[in-house]
Amino acid sequence: MGRVTTRRRVARLTLGAGITRREDTLVVEEPLEIRVGGRSLAVTMRTPGHDVELAAGFLVSEGVISRGEQFASARFCAGDAGVDNTYNVLDVTLAPGVAPPAPELARAFFTTSSCGLCGKASIDAVRTTSAFRVQDDPLRVSAETLAELPNRLRAAQDVFEKTGGLHAAGLYRVADDELLVVREDVGRHNAVDKVVGWALTHDLLPLTGTVLMVSGRASFELTQKALMAGIPMLAAVSAPSSLAVELAIETGMSVVGFLRGESMVVYAGTQRVVPAQERRPAQTEGSAA
Amino acid sequence: MGRVTTRRRVARLTLGAGITRREDTLVVEEPLEIRVGGRSLAVTMRTPGHDVELAAGFLVSEGVISRGEQFASARFCAGDAGVDNTYNVLDVTLAPGVAPPAPELARAFFTTSSCGLCGKASIDAVRTTSAFRVQDDPLRVSAETLAELPNRLRAAQDVFEKTGGLHAAGLYRVADDELLVVREDVGRHNAVDKVVGWALTHDLLPLTGTVLMVSGRASFELTQKALMAGIPMLAAVSAPSSLAVELAIETGMSVVGFLRGESMVVYAGTQRVVPAQERRPAQTEGSAA
Repeated sequence: MGRVTTRRRVARLTLGAGITRREDTLVVEEPLEIRVGGRSLAVTMRTPGHDVELAAGFLVSEGVISRGEQFASARFCAGDAGVDNTYNVLDVTLAPGVAPPAPELARAFFTTSSCGLCGKASIDAVRTTSAFRVQDDPLRVSAETLAELPNRLRAAQDVFEKTGGLHAAGLYRVADDELLVVREDVGRHNAVDKVVGWALTHDLLPLTGTVLMVSGRASFELTQKALMAGIPMLAAVSAPSSLAVELAIETGMSVVGFLRGESMVVYAGTQRVVPAQERRPAQTEGSAA
Repeated sequence: MGRVTTRRRVARLTLGAGITRREDTLVVEEPLEIRVGGRSLAVTMRTPGHDVELAAGFLVSEGVISRGEQFASARFCAGDAGVDNTYNVLDVTLAPGVAPPAPELARAFFTTSSCGLCGKASIDAVRTTSAFRVQDDPLRVSAETLAELPNRLRAAQDVFEKTGGLHAAGLYRVADDELLVVREDVGRHNAVDKVVGWALTHDLLPLTGTVLMVSGRASFELTQKALMAGIPMLAAVSAPSSLAVELAIETGMSVVGFLRGESMVVYAGTQRVVPAQERRPAQTEGSAA
């Protein structure tokens, strides 16, 4: 995990107190080229680590695969001749019989540290069709449980405290009352792809009965990624966008935003959120005698 | 500006206080297809408004144009036959003699609300070469001025207060002591492209003597966009990534991060930040007689 952060000499200025020179920790951002069967599919700006999960989750988001057995293997490739392996090119082998990405999908795009759905040729191509239906998912989560998720996500973040520069995504499963996995990345879409890829390689798709908890905002992109993995609820610390909510309503997903302290806003799929139990007034009869 | 935000009926839950149903304001996220000479170049997920600036700035970021006269005009196109103009397809006409985007640039990519550099075919293609040099820019900014920029940016944001869902970018010019322009968008790369596009259409490139102030983190992508516009300093409220700092050091840009309250961290190009004046101790001679 040494490449997740790096140290640099910086100058810290405070008004009235002058300059302090010191070492500071930065989150690492580096390109990863994802290839399928030797053919370049995408370049994404990511934080190194869990790259195989990232590639697997990316292929789920793109609709190329939806089951663990479709993902055969992945290996890092050497760069150009004479250049050492930089662990920035990853080649995925799909299982025999799995169709490779369609030529129009293999759009060789470059995704930045906050982007993961890049390369579509037209507006019509923006939406991907999920192999899974989430509208019938009987998931129910209590408001109390949701209110705790941001703290549980933050507690599981290793790197954020050191750098302040990472997004996080976590997968909560109600049946276990547990965050099954948490991933951090300089790009929020990468953090989600790493979570989904982890689930794919553990044969957990579709992710029925789960909540995808993200540290930032809920964009269209993240909503779509959740949908492609069969996740029925997206919960975010910050605001959702209009299109995120529209997609959720259209597909029967739940979206919860502004999950802060003891309150939250439910934008779609309200039936899955069980309101806080009214606390029964303490029995007072005879207690204050 | 009606399409910048939208209203939706939501359910607000507070533990112990139950559910309130109410109307809430969401930031609008919609796809914009950018065409050049009728040919699709990119689809970006953006907040509507200032779309011509967005397209102009995008073309600067991509290295297609670098001067105002190269951008002839832009108009919204009708969608598919029979579909009303949705103002989501914008066709740019370049000036006669300006080379259209190279075929490998015209990669027809889809950029999400947090991405703007999408579509590169390989890692080598990630970096774009700027028409401008920033390393010789004699910009000097006082730490006091920098410390004020986040508040000045926030004060100029129209939509954030209503939705909590927008990034902002502002262009500060030292000679005027003024934020020349502030743009908000659900995607931070779009906010920066809108600022750069505004500057291009006002014939202000290269943006010598300016600071690009952004509301979030400083990624490689934003650093590169600043570089392509000839902006010598990027200032961010949050953390920069390793690659953002490396690119800045390599090209002679300044990067300031964690600009909060009275302190900041300078990661690159420290010489451009003039430390706070030591406040002279009040003359005490004879004053306490």
